[in-house]
Amino acid sequence: MHDLGPLLLALAAIILATKVLGDMAQRFGQPAVLGELVAGVLLGKSLLSIIDAHDAVLSALAELGVLILLFEIGLHTDLRSLRRVGSQALVVAVVGVAAPFAGGYYAAAALGLGTIQALVAGAALTATSIGISARALRDIGQLDTPEGQIVLGAAVLDDLLGLVILSVVSAIVAGAEVSVLSVARTTGLALGFVALAVTLGSMAVPPIFKVVERLRTTGALGLVALAFAFLMAVFAEAAGSAMIVGALAAGLVLHGTPQRHEIERNVTQLGYFFVPIFFAVVGASVDLQALSDPRALLVGGVLTIIGIVGKLMTGWSLRNFEGNRWLVGVAMIPRGEVGLIFAQVGLASGAIAAGEFGAIMMMVIATTLITPPWLSALTRTKARNVFDPTGEGLDDLVAGSRPTTPRATQPVKRNYKDE
Amino acid sequence: MHDLGPLLLALAAIILATKVLGDMAQRFGQPAVLGELVAGVLLGKSLLSIIDAHDAVLSALAELGVLILLFEIGLHTDLRSLRRVGSQALVVAVVGVAAPFAGGYYAAAALGLGTIQALVAGAALTATSIGISARALRDIGQLDTPEGQIVLGAAVLDDLLGLVILSVVSAIVAGAEVSVLSVARTTGLALGFVALAVTLGSMAVPPIFKVVERLRTTGALGLVALAFAFLMAVFAEAAGSAMIVGALAAGLVLHGTPQRHEIERNVTQLGYFFVPIFFAVVGASVDLQALSDPRALLVGGVLTIIGIVGKLMTGWSLRNFEGNRWLVGVAMIPRGEVGLIFAQVGLASGAIAAGEFGAIMMMVIATTLITPPWLSALTRTKARNVFDPTGEGLDDLVAGSRPTTPRATQPVKRNYKDE
Repeated sequence: MHDLGPLLLALAAIILATKVLGDMAQRFGQPAVLGELVAGVLLGKSLLSIIDAHDAVLSALAELGVLILLFEIGLHTDLRSLRRVGSQALVVAVVGVAAPFAGGYYAAAALGLGTIQALVAGAALTATSIGISARALRDIGQLDTPEGQIVLGAAVLDDLLGLVILSVVSAIVAGAEVSVLSVARTTGLALGFVALAVTLGSMAVPPIFKVVERLRTTGALGLVALAFAFLMAVFAEAAGSAMIVGALAAGLVLHGTPQRHEIERNVTQLGYFFVPIFFAVVGASVDLQALSDPRALLVGGVLTIIGIVGKLMTGWSLRNFEGNRWLVGVAMIPRGEVGLIFAQVGLASGAIAAGEFGAIMMMVIATTLITPPWLSALTRTKARNVFDPTGEGLDDLVAGSRPTTPRATQPVKRNYKDE
Repeated sequence: MHDLGPLLLALAAIILATKVLGDMAQRFGQPAVLGELVAGVLLGKSLLSIIDAHDAVLSALAELGVLILLFEIGLHTDLRSLRRVGSQALVVAVVGVAAPFAGGYYAAAALGLGTIQALVAGAALTATSIGISARALRDIGQLDTPEGQIVLGAAVLDDLLGLVILSVVSAIVAGAEVSVLSVARTTGLALGFVALAVTLGSMAVPPIFKVVERLRTTGALGLVALAFAFLMAVFAEAAGSAMIVGALAAGLVLHGTPQRHEIERNVTQLGYFFVPIFFAVVGASVDLQALSDPRALLVGGVLTIIGIVGKLMTGWSLRNFEGNRWLVGVAMIPRGEVGLIFAQVGLASGAIAAGEFGAIMMMVIATTLITPPWLSALTRTKARNVFDPTGEGLDDLVAGSRPTTPRATQPVKRNYKDE
């Protein structure tokens, strides 16, 4: 047995800090995820240095956490409601990728960065963090609204587009030739996976889970479902898509099975443990030191503004939309793990220096931390906010946090859920 | 993000194999843990090579699994019933350490092994695997009987004694002087920890959990309890005891709180995921190749017989005991992780060669695999065995497996549980 002590201390610290700060966030009318992110920043290397975001075991647990979160979100999402908002989600995704990419590239170039640095900066601005966005929407009870479904669909799509951009930019940074054909192939593979997985899965999965249901081993149903999500994540990556997209697709497929509620119950309890680890590790990977350089601060500030404005535009890009455009735009703002991956790939390859890395990091932090309170403020101003301190709010299917303002949410105009 | 794929495949394989083989074991009237161990052997390097027991992340998850299992067992155990069997547990522990140690040492020496090899072989025979033992007893509904409580107490004590022996034998292997004083100090620290932890914990913990209960974050109660178990595990190790003892002590302390049932519900669901990983990894660390050498097979066979007889004697060492002596003796048989640790320490230090390592491994495998079916047979012959295929048996507080033979258990003569 190797030394488990530091891991146990880190996990205990994460549990205590995320639960206490999550509670405080909720008492101030904010989503719990904000408290969990702040808990991570506190515990990370910038401040207390209790957790190391690069620890192999901890980062694996965090990645299991984001997979479980996306699986839960998929389980909770009716595919038909996603399909119904499909074209709107596509518009939001394309605008939300193109506007920040172009804006980031030109602004960075104008601030004196080289072409490659500007490309990396623009690319890092593209992908909305689906985990943070969906979790913040769920915390305030807005995930099942048309706005929430558009954002969810768009965040999936822009993750896929972001991955395509990542592979193209990585190739350019490495000095390789990039052909239109290879870009089209990557795009097709990434988008095709979800369609294929969901179509095939919807046929093959129900009979399998009818058998699984008969297993006498306790917790079998939820865990076999989780194994399915893990396998779909692996397939997704193998197909050139992202693991989180595979986990989400697994949830979407299982949403249609009669065993869905028991699966949700099992998986939710696992999520209570794993999901906050993800947010704490995202928070802990923030390096506040990187913001000491004034030029990095300037570039970071400009990128942050472009990151916010570029995604806000998505709400107004929708035609014939009766919902809350602000809600869509704001929910698209957070960049999380994908932005950090761009920055890390850029730094590791030597394409960008520590200053640009710090600037991108600043944009990721700012856009991530600004979203939960902004969303919460948007929904609060739209409805009479009766604060209910005992608020049991949503049922326990909504994992990760008990929403503070279930009664403060905007009235759902068109609820696409089938129950 | 590093490559998560192999871990996800390993976890999916573990989930599917342990749930399916656990189900099969139960259909054959065996405890689910037997199926989980066999699943591990199948997936391990001897056969399918799908999981690597030495993978850092997987072994960390397995260790979290055994901590959660011991925490669950502690949560489920009334300290008063353990105290009531205290002196009997002590007798069982001492006999169960001394008899196999002496027998193993002399038999190994008679078979031509050197003094140090014989010492390692004897030491590896001492400690009952509390995880496997308690889990097998729980699977057949015997953990709360006087026999089960004696075995639980004795397994805790002989783990502590085993750790003392490990440190002494390691020191001798390393050529160090071993004084009576240092042995006494190690023993005192190890035993004192539990007493102190439980005493202090019982005073400090209830007011803390009264506050924790008011946290609005979902799952907070169960997870803060888990953080407490992790911290107790770290303290236990720092005090010279074992981590699993700390986790058990944490459970014993929380058993007395009003929040116990909600904590059990939360932790049980986590156990469904983590605990089978532990048993699968124990199974996967089995190297069937090590048994190809005839001399290793002979030594292994002799050690296995001594390992079985030495622990069976514990049942007959009890005075004025009206319970089932066979049940006590058989439940003490399995050696698991502690035996493997002895073998690994011996091999790594050069004290033993691959042959002796294989022999010890064989003893660990045989004693581990023989126990669940033997226990199950013992309880079945004692009672009318009405097999109930729908058997919902025990409540969901009993995690990890749904018992196959809840109605086939021996009538509990004296139930020390306080409810």
